[in-house]
Amino acid sequence: MQFRHPFDPETDGDKLREECGIFGVVGAKDAANFVALGLHALQHRGQEAGGIVSHDPEHGFNSARRFGYVRDNFTNAAVMDTLPGPIAIGHVRYSTAGSKGATAIRDVQPFFGEFSMGGCAIAHNGNITNAVALRRELIERGSIFQSSSDSECIIHLMARSIQKTLAERIKDALRRVEGAFSVIAMTRTKLIGVRDAHGVRPLVLGRIGDSGWALSSETCGLDIIGADFVREIEPGEMVVIEGNRVESTRPFVQATPRFCIFEQVYFSRPDSILLGRSVYETRRMIGVELAREAPVEADLVCPVPDSGTPAAIGFSQESGIPYAMGIIRNQYMGRTFIEPTEHIRNMGVRLKLNVNRALIKGKRVVLVDDSVVRGTTSRKIKEMILEAGAAEVHFRIASPPTAWPCFYGVDTPERSKLLAATMSEDEMRDWIGVNSLKFISLDGLYRAAGEAQGRNAKAPQFCDACFSGEYPVVPSDKIEEGFQMKAAE
Amino acid sequence: MQFRHPFDPETDGDKLREECGIFGVVGAKDAANFVALGLHALQHRGQEAGGIVSHDPEHGFNSARRFGYVRDNFTNAAVMDTLPGPIAIGHVRYSTAGSKGATAIRDVQPFFGEFSMGGCAIAHNGNITNAVALRRELIERGSIFQSSSDSECIIHLMARSIQKTLAERIKDALRRVEGAFSVIAMTRTKLIGVRDAHGVRPLVLGRIGDSGWALSSETCGLDIIGADFVREIEPGEMVVIEGNRVESTRPFVQATPRFCIFEQVYFSRPDSILLGRSVYETRRMIGVELAREAPVEADLVCPVPDSGTPAAIGFSQESGIPYAMGIIRNQYMGRTFIEPTEHIRNMGVRLKLNVNRALIKGKRVVLVDDSVVRGTTSRKIKEMILEAGAAEVHFRIASPPTAWPCFYGVDTPERSKLLAATMSEDEMRDWIGVNSLKFISLDGLYRAAGEAQGRNAKAPQFCDACFSGEYPVVPSDKIEEGFQMKAAE
Amino acid sequence: MQFRHPFDPETDGDKLREECGIFGVVGAKDAANFVALGLHALQHRGQEAGGIVSHDPEHGFNSARRFGYVRDNFTNAAVMDTLPGPIAIGHVRYSTAGSKGATAIRDVQPFFGEFSMGGCAIAHNGNITNAVALRRELIERGSIFQSSSDSECIIHLMARSIQKTLAERIKDALRRVEGAFSVIAMTRTKLIGVRDAHGVRPLVLGRIGDSGWALSSETCGLDIIGADFVREIEPGEMVVIEGNRVESTRPFVQATPRFCIFEQVYFSRPDSILLGRSVYETRRMIGVELAREAPVEADLVCPVPDSGTPAAIGFSQESGIPYAMGIIRNQYMGRTFIEPTEHIRNMGVRLKLNVNRALIKGKRVVLVDDSVVRGTTSRKIKEMILEAGAAEVHFRIASPPTAWPCFYGVDTPERSKLLAATMSEDEMRDWIGVNSLKFISLDGLYRAAGEAQGRNAKAPQFCDACFSGEYPVVPSDKIEEGFQMKAAE
Amino acid sequence: MQFRHPFDPETDGDKLREECGIFGVVGAKDAANFVALGLHALQHRGQEAGGIVSHDPEHGFNSARRFGYVRDNFTNAAVMDTLPGPIAIGHVRYSTAGSKGATAIRDVQPFFGEFSMGGCAIAHNGNITNAVALRRELIERGSIFQSSSDSECIIHLMARSIQKTLAERIKDALRRVEGAFSVIAMTRTKLIGVRDAHGVRPLVLGRIGDSGWALSSETCGLDIIGADFVREIEPGEMVVIEGNRVESTRPFVQATPRFCIFEQVYFSRPDSILLGRSVYETRRMIGVELAREAPVEADLVCPVPDSGTPAAIGFSQESGIPYAMGIIRNQYMGRTFIEPTEHIRNMGVRLKLNVNRALIKGKRVVLVDDSVVRGTTSRKIKEMILEAGAAEVHFRIASPPTAWPCFYGVDTPERSKLLAATMSEDEMRDWIGVNSLKFISLDGLYRAAGEAQGRNAKAPQFCDACFSGEYPVVPSDKIEEGFQMKAAE
Repeated sequence: MQFRHPFDPETDGDKLREECGIFGVVGAKDAANFVALGLHALQHRGQEAGGIVSHDPEHGFNSARRFGYVRDNFTNAAVMDTLPGPIAIGHVRYSTAGSKGATAIRDVQPFFGEFSMGGCAIAHNGNITNAVALRRELIERGSIFQSSSDSECIIHLMARSIQKTLAERIKDALRRVEGAFSVIAMTRTKLIGVRDAHGVRPLVLGRIGDSGWALSSETCGLDIIGADFVREIEPGEMVVIEGNRVESTRPFVQATPRFCIFEQVYFSRPDSILLGRSVYETRRMIGVELAREAPVEADLVCPVPDSGTPAAIGFSQESGIPYAMGIIRNQYMGRTFIEPTEHIRNMGVRLKLNVNRALIKGKRVVLVDDSVVRGTTSRKIKEMILEAGAAEVHFRIASPPTAWPCFYGVDTPERSKLLAATMSEDEMRDWIGVNSLKFISLDGLYRAAGEAQGRNAKAPQFCDACFSGEYPVVPSDKIEEGFQMKAAE
Repeated sequence: MQFRHPFDPETDGDKLREECGIFGVVGAKDAANFVALGLHALQHRGQEAGGIVSHDPEHGFNSARRFGYVRDNFTNAAVMDTLPGPIAIGHVRYSTAGSKGATAIRDVQPFFGEFSMGGCAIAHNGNITNAVALRRELIERGSIFQSSSDSECIIHLMARSIQKTLAERIKDALRRVEGAFSVIAMTRTKLIGVRDAHGVRPLVLGRIGDSGWALSSETCGLDIIGADFVREIEPGEMVVIEGNRVESTRPFVQATPRFCIFEQVYFSRPDSILLGRSVYETRRMIGVELAREAPVEADLVCPVPDSGTPAAIGFSQESGIPYAMGIIRNQYMGRTFIEPTEHIRNMGVRLKLNVNRALIKGKRVVLVDDSVVRGTTSRKIKEMILEAGAAEVHFRIASPPTAWPCFYGVDTPERSKLLAATMSEDEMRDWIGVNSLKFISLDGLYRAAGEAQGRNAKAPQFCDACFSGEYPVVPSDKIEEGFQMKAAE
Repeated sequence: MQFRHPFDPETDGDKLREECGIFGVVGAKDAANFVALGLHALQHRGQEAGGIVSHDPEHGFNSARRFGYVRDNFTNAAVMDTLPGPIAIGHVRYSTAGSKGATAIRDVQPFFGEFSMGGCAIAHNGNITNAVALRRELIERGSIFQSSSDSECIIHLMARSIQKTLAERIKDALRRVEGAFSVIAMTRTKLIGVRDAHGVRPLVLGRIGDSGWALSSETCGLDIIGADFVREIEPGEMVVIEGNRVESTRPFVQATPRFCIFEQVYFSRPDSILLGRSVYETRRMIGVELAREAPVEADLVCPVPDSGTPAAIGFSQESGIPYAMGIIRNQYMGRTFIEPTEHIRNMGVRLKLNVNRALIKGKRVVLVDDSVVRGTTSRKIKEMILEAGAAEVHFRIASPPTAWPCFYGVDTPERSKLLAATMSEDEMRDWIGVNSLKFISLDGLYRAAGEAQGRNAKAPQFCDACFSGEYPVVPSDKIEEGFQMKAAE
Repeated sequence: MQFRHPFDPETDGDKLREECGIFGVVGAKDAANFVALGLHALQHRGQEAGGIVSHDPEHGFNSARRFGYVRDNFTNAAVMDTLPGPIAIGHVRYSTAGSKGATAIRDVQPFFGEFSMGGCAIAHNGNITNAVALRRELIERGSIFQSSSDSECIIHLMARSIQKTLAERIKDALRRVEGAFSVIAMTRTKLIGVRDAHGVRPLVLGRIGDSGWALSSETCGLDIIGADFVREIEPGEMVVIEGNRVESTRPFVQATPRFCIFEQVYFSRPDSILLGRSVYETRRMIGVELAREAPVEADLVCPVPDSGTPAAIGFSQESGIPYAMGIIRNQYMGRTFIEPTEHIRNMGVRLKLNVNRALIKGKRVVLVDDSVVRGTTSRKIKEMILEAGAAEVHFRIASPPTAWPCFYGVDTPERSKLLAATMSEDEMRDWIGVNSLKFISLDGLYRAAGEAQGRNAKAPQFCDACFSGEYPVVPSDKIEEGFQMKAAE
């Protein structure tokens, strides 16, 4: 295993492209227990590691951070007893491909800072696009970084602020930060939530009984603790919650909302509600749109499990082709085999998926998947389906071609590794080796997401940079590294 | 935690009610790697623990047994390197409710015995219904039991046999054994498979390339290693495989085949093939039959994930009511939270399932589940659905009422705990608290399983004791303990 | 690492040459706690693994076996709470060189057997010299061995006995056994202690308050629990303890006592009492005798820590040469570095010992060590001492030349590896490379051990086979393997 | 267990009273291996945790920190392979009583900081007496502390320095620091060693072959890696080592050397050389002085193992009373039983020590111990000795009464807990309950340490604040907390 160290400056700004889940609670007995449950519901947003910080007047701030699933670390009494108090926040973190060796536990959030007016912990979902420059400047002025995470900049910017309150210092810090972020912070008594001006990453507010509040990346985090969904935190909004008061301010220069459309396609859980709509329903409608845009004669519509399921249902309903479970997922996979034997490494997708042979044999099959990134998995699935005797294989993809990397908190390969960056739809079809391959159009996707008129090309309603190459926030660190933006048309 | 010891004779015959998966390979380089993969595919048949024994001429017999998932134990090189050789067998074991503390690693199969003509390992799926009596007799005559498993009797019976070959000794031993079993055994060079005369538990034969053979509980275990499905081992058959020869004999008194119908309903994987039919298709047909037998006016058909899915699809297709994912399963659950805090223990089903609120609200919902055992989970799911605002809830169950315990290798509560043993269908409906509750009829189930005429009451084609109370093999140990058979009608 | 399996019959009779410590308690609340303490005091007799079995009427027999030190396994409440009851026995086991990989936890004693009249656990210190033959016969007749330990024969012999009580079955079994043994056994209510007819291995009886009894390999095990030393179990004696009664019988053919003299030289703890004498005092007297037999002009007498210390004190006192700590032992070694880097493997003895340079420089040093086996350590110590600038190095050894392997429970290299088997004293001196090398004479050793007239060559008072080659019990398994006894003179 | 968090400011300045060992190497292949060995030799200076940082051009700075012994963490290849390169430093840390739960891994040194001119790691032995004030000031100005260790101040002071080189920044930082310290630091290519102006803590320089250098707390760390002892780093000296050059400067205001006399009495290993003298010889001479100052009629002189041994040898030699091992230490104790049962917690000292009963019975015994702190252990040892039948017990203590806490890197109880702070020698004798109790005089101790004229009261040659209450550096944080210095006489 190659060893990459968190001290290594070369890794900074390189492996911070994670998708995260954040959760916070105030005003509830043993708040950390609620946070653990909320993080469990948000586990799909980050499986590598998790952390919780809590505070109570007697024991002060306490913290626990662990590699692995929430259910394995933050459920037993021995750990949770060390996290007492009525206020707590937490974070789950995604494992970027192959980088486990490089992540020290010190990269696991929430981050904590002790200031002269008291301690403050923060949990950050998103990506700071000027983190390299900020870090360089902060080190120059005497800050000592303890992690390789760009999120740590926020704490150091707070430490440098001359504001008197922690809430004001958070504003000061986030005004220096460029990029996409949703942030949950806590002081001894206040729970704070902030979204960047574009509102790229989600953040919602919930009510726990009569006295408590929760902030969560998604509404499914509220459901699990029995909290009522109050509203989304708005793009550019900061809420400071203490006791029964929720104080709202707008610390940033106003901007057009550009919520991440990939949250609709893939990231968010199907049982969450985004922008007032069921994610499941949006995805089912993608299938419906796909069936209209790219119809095909076939015997069965099968999802690539599990993320293709809602779109496959929609495709089946619109097309009238029967829906079937043609591919079965092994439920005992976990994320991956660890330190596998050579033999097992070579098994690839077969460990996770098996074709329902008796069903597929001799059939013309429509496979509905959420996206095509490198295309390698699509190819393997096609092989399995053909080997099982399918007569024809038609891929229908519930998102447009992914041709550009995301710099706002999503781990994407570099552009040259994205299949759609180098091939046309027909070339992709041939390379994957299927009878047909169709992606939903950008307009079709917008319609499925509730924009009846489709995409407003002048002022797109979502961030769709991964499909369109139009980045709402200039990725300045990346440009410094040599990334080429799409030429203006 | 209460401590139950494997030495404790009172636990014998009590916690042996497990469902297991077995797998064996001969004639393949590093056979244990194939066995690990096969067991991974059979993990749904037993999640508590697993074991593999291999043999090669240089190192003799080697063994590894572990608690936990196959993927966590039998995939890394450090463990697998200790299991060299061209022949290996393995076993996965189910965790009976709450008994983890009681299971010593020594209860984990395969069991091994050193005989004067060489070593022999066996893996057993099923249950020996005269194990208590056999064990008593064997101890009387000087055998020392090392586990609390009834399967260990087989090894001791072999040790007492005066036959000259291990294969003959296995026959001797299994002729003394009553109950339901599929057994895979290995000597230094021979792979052996046996099914009891009724063929209650499954066992299939596969071909690996030109030189190797595999035995597996289900065909999905063959798929994962790329083996070709050759045929089922037949009820009452014993095969001895060495080199390219598969020698078949019939060591037992002949009996009517009575394959376990619950394998069709729930145990086997949907991508397996049983009795020449796709399990998925049988389950989808159960849904079709249910829609015919128990139609209902509703807006949505939702499966209780994941086992209700194929029947829900069939119900939707037959009824025309749209299929939808109304309940979302959390993929990060594992089997259970370990040593949970009080807070989390009280969360119950909410940790595993969440209702798709935006979808369900105001709708009349048909929920399709595989079975009702104690009924407690059904009640909780009903609460979640109503709390999310469903207008009506109709349960449709893909199996008849489970009114009798299984004594053939399935862990079932004692009869008094089975809801259907004490209530009529209407009483169950009221106790669960839903608008309607309907089970598929026994005839409907048989039809879905391919018996066009339904159940032959004179000579039932399957073992359906859990539904009918008609036990093909007398459960003598249980009767000795006081179990009351159904009165003859 | 080479993998040797416990199933492998070739390892039987080969790696069973361990020295062990055994301890048992009856009639004390939570007897297992006392056993844990007793085993901790006996840890020098076996560091690889330990086990305890206890019984109480409510929970029956319980057992825990672990690799590692007693203090790491059998002291915390979580383990000890699983071992309730007023009767318990335990065992610690020595790690034979390099064989850790080969030892399964199933080789760890006590062994347990369930018989028709109840359960029985046994702990065995010693070696059965006809174990290979016994095992062969038992397997032939239908016994299934679960470990590679020769001690398991005792349990199977008990199972075959037709006696009605467990105590009588133990007698039956031990009468079939040849070799050297001290055994502690327990039934539900009885604690049993036995020594072989020669009494090669130690076993003592102690009294706990008014109601309890303890059996221990050495008196230091009684001290730690505050028990009073009552007496030694005599050679050939069996005691059965129940309530306040200690019933003594003599089940074996009488023989001359031949207690192991190496217990005096090295194995037993210096604070134990053997045959009515302080072990420390015997060892100090060895030093006195050595100073008389092999005087030398020198500036300092230094022990090779820690086992050479008492003899070095005696040598100093008799010779008048000042005693000094010329070699300092690192207290943080544990037994060994595990999976060391190449770099550290090459450090050898330097990791454990360091020379007190400022003290040694320019001095003539007498080094007193307990024994010379292969001689390799002596050579390394000599190098360290010379490198530190010693003017002369004189080795004085507190035992005669070790020229023969022990077959009675001590792990010794095969004869050809013993330095004294192939070299004269002068050759050894030259090979080690010191100014002088002297061993105590066999007579001198007997005198130090309290036999004023020295060794009675006609009827030696001790077993001294490792020095003399005169084996009191014929090592029949070894002779079958090809071992050559010393020719009669 | 009470949970104290590293974030908790109340723990700052409270649990930093540790004694540590530090080691560094430059110019040797795989320097971290040497550092691991050096730390193993220094393990007596800190057993709780250890850390190593290394650097090589290809992988940059790498770090590993672990709880537990060096031999358990820093010897196997898997860990050491992550620490490549020709330069490395390390640290072992002492466990302050009962505070394990409070120490996060982040408190484990070396600490690392990334500065604009590159990274720097430091390992600190000692205590900063103005750490509370420094930390307060640094936080005020925007520094974020990540540990509760006072040593972290050094890194933040470096970050604030406007010097251009890391070596100059270390000087800047250490000039702001008050207290006692020896520091080893490393940059990419330079190994740096510094001692405070009084030279309270030790630090020595060694040569590895022709090209490498080592810095170590004690000379025993050089011995284990085969390095030659070159010289001590002098009080107030800073050495910067790169390639073959050792550059020496004096960055601090000059002060009288005041080496810690307790290093002579107890902390340092007996095989180390301090101020040109063997520590063992100094301790033996303490025994000689004690025998002169406080003679007694007795039969045996016994050390309290192991630290009382050299003084007991000296006492025996001077008094003519025979030296004997009257108390035997259990070698398998480790530091402590973890999570013990109630039963075992009550065993106390008996788990570690056993009296050699047969030797002690009826004898008048002189027990030589290194020091008396709270006196509780002395009392228990007395009880054991009397219970074993000793006729008389006389304690002789190899240090003067410990009446004042140390604030320079030694963990001492608060003053009120020190037996000698509240009782006279006679009162202590009666409280412990022995026939006589005598401490060596301060002058006698100085004579044994090589000061023929004893202590120079005007300008003491050592720091002896723990005995005299005369603190060479004002403990300003402690005074702020309320500590009362001894009134000037």
